[in-house]
Amino acid sequence: MTDLPTSMRQIRSLVTADGRLELSIATTDMPVPAAHEVLVRVDAAPINPSDLGLLLGMADVAQATSTGSGDSTVVTAPISPNVLKGLTARVGESMPVGNEGAGLVVAAGDSPEAQALLGKMVGFVGGATYGEYRAAAAFMCMELPAGATAAQGASCFVNPLTALSMVENMRMDGHTALVHTAAASNLGQMLNRICIADGVPLVNIVRRPEQAGILRAQGAEHIVDSSSPTFLDDLTQALITTGATIAFDAIGGGKLAGQILSCMEAAANAKATEYSRYGSDVYKQVFIYGGLDRGPTELTRSFGMSWGLGGWLLTPFLGKLGLEGMLRLRQRVADELTTTFASHYTDEVSLAGALGLDALQTYAKQATGQKFLIRPQA
Amino acid sequence: MTDLPTSMRQIRSLVTADGRLELSIATTDMPVPAAHEVLVRVDAAPINPSDLGLLLGMADVAQATSTGSGDSTVVTAPISPNVLKGLTARVGESMPVGNEGAGLVVAAGDSPEAQALLGKMVGFVGGATYGEYRAAAAFMCMELPAGATAAQGASCFVNPLTALSMVENMRMDGHTALVHTAAASNLGQMLNRICIADGVPLVNIVRRPEQAGILRAQGAEHIVDSSSPTFLDDLTQALITTGATIAFDAIGGGKLAGQILSCMEAAANAKATEYSRYGSDVYKQVFIYGGLDRGPTELTRSFGMSWGLGGWLLTPFLGKLGLEGMLRLRQRVADELTTTFASHYTDEVSLAGALGLDALQTYAKQATGQKFLIRPQA
Repeated sequence: MTDLPTSMRQIRSLVTADGRLELSIATTDMPVPAAHEVLVRVDAAPINPSDLGLLLGMADVAQATSTGSGDSTVVTAPISPNVLKGLTARVGESMPVGNEGAGLVVAAGDSPEAQALLGKMVGFVGGATYGEYRAAAAFMCMELPAGATAAQGASCFVNPLTALSMVENMRMDGHTALVHTAAASNLGQMLNRICIADGVPLVNIVRRPEQAGILRAQGAEHIVDSSSPTFLDDLTQALITTGATIAFDAIGGGKLAGQILSCMEAAANAKATEYSRYGSDVYKQVFIYGGLDRGPTELTRSFGMSWGLGGWLLTPFLGKLGLEGMLRLRQRVADELTTTFASHYTDEVSLAGALGLDALQTYAKQATGQKFLIRPQA
Repeated sequence: MTDLPTSMRQIRSLVTADGRLELSIATTDMPVPAAHEVLVRVDAAPINPSDLGLLLGMADVAQATSTGSGDSTVVTAPISPNVLKGLTARVGESMPVGNEGAGLVVAAGDSPEAQALLGKMVGFVGGATYGEYRAAAAFMCMELPAGATAAQGASCFVNPLTALSMVENMRMDGHTALVHTAAASNLGQMLNRICIADGVPLVNIVRRPEQAGILRAQGAEHIVDSSSPTFLDDLTQALITTGATIAFDAIGGGKLAGQILSCMEAAANAKATEYSRYGSDVYKQVFIYGGLDRGPTELTRSFGMSWGLGGWLLTPFLGKLGLEGMLRLRQRVADELTTTFASHYTDEVSLAGALGLDALQTYAKQATGQKFLIRPQA
């Protein structure tokens, strides 16, 4: 392969003891792949909502300030004392960031599985992808289909496996239809394509009429707009039609999770033939997997006693699914990378560009339709 | 046996289409036990929190009015339109009430298990216990120990099996210590005795200093008062000490359930050796099994992604536990009926007495320390 440099640049996130977030670009030694690892030249890495917790440390980015320029940029933003309490374990540690990315394998460890990837374009997962190079376990790499670009492969793990896992989780727990919120997101559109392909009824909850339009144009059948005055009735009707009793909620705060449970209960009672004193015995589950609204979750408990609300993360779910299940999902992603699992980016930025205040304050909002791709080689 | 009457009196709860609760005493035909059933002369039946939903239909009992007297008493109370929507399935149906009770078996069906109970004092479960007689499945009866009174046996199912099931659920889900709220209740005191006997660390959350005193006098080790300014720190410390990661909450509304999850997360992080970006991976569970506060549940999600909140009911849990498990729990209740599983009543009322406005407005409050026993034969 080409001669490799001896050092590289990498985005770092630091939380200080006095409650500041500091983002910077560090120069570090070039990683040397172990026997089971490959060295990936990172050509593209997405900024996913799941990256923002580590990157931004829940700092108040509206108050962020910046010094220096280019690779010397340092961004500082205050962290509230309450939030800081939960970050004690990372105080003072300059942390690399980025869950996934894609690029060319430019070196490989001695193991046959690592050697097999040498010179290949791969998508991979495993942290520290917001940097020029990354040593990654060969097992955590997916060889991209012939002709696929780094941009096409950059998001081949987190969103695709999350969307597929929602459907797997639905089946594993005995449900037959799904509810999804913030449904016009990249992930939501992906989930919509999966559910259409698999014949799984999906209730898409969006927050604005134009988001409903995006999904309708992509063949979504059940779309409910939470900004509509008839939202609760519309949602109940969609739940009666689909029989959905499990929801994945990206929003988290506010009344939505509780409203979904209440409408599920109303849908169950609409089919009930006799009064059940503790509410319907139909089990209703909402999983919160994101935090678009970081405010409190408010539940008006009008949904009986047979319900659950919980946090949901991809990695523990894949653990439940087991190795064979995970490989099955990965194979599907590889097979349908540029169709079902296509991602769309509105902005491309360099490492330094990702630390620009405008960029940062934009991706921190996690607005539907806006998605950033980092180009570490730029 | 004695000559039996041909009719009997029974408390009835009716929800009308125009949103009124009507409580009355109906005269009905004497039940005739089927082959597998016994006829119990109900001598005592408790008013448990789990009876109140069916009895009171979530009506506004502060506005209750009453006509007639004695067995002709009719109590009326308004039901808000929002609540009424959830009660559609029971509108117009005059329903008998009461989950459990105790008394003498005065007749029995032909089956050997029913015949074996003839002339015995039993506690039983199965509904319609707020009446003079009840036909009950022999399987749902527990023969009381020699010398035990109906009052001692009246609460031998709901509270004892609930308290025991909390400990079983804890073990089943891999937790090793428990949190309980409204911990000075009859149920809470029972749970405290079970946990002391079984060596299970129990964090008792009470709402007032005098409730802490009750539990302390009964040997409770970890008592936290939610009215104290140091509540959150005290709770976190108790969770660090005990390692409790599952809670049973009788209150439901307000911030308490979320505070328990947050303090569990703080306790987990206090033991963590490195920063985990999505919060601690220690799974934290709160089950809401009561509704002392019927207001909204408010969660400030500062407890990572590894958590669950859900409704909890005895019957489905016993289903999970299976027949053998349930029989094991019942045997323990029979063996320790007047010790571990002793209940205390502050008020005894006749059927008509239970419809007195003062009585009704008192037991509707579910105040800790106040517990009513109905004497249908009085």
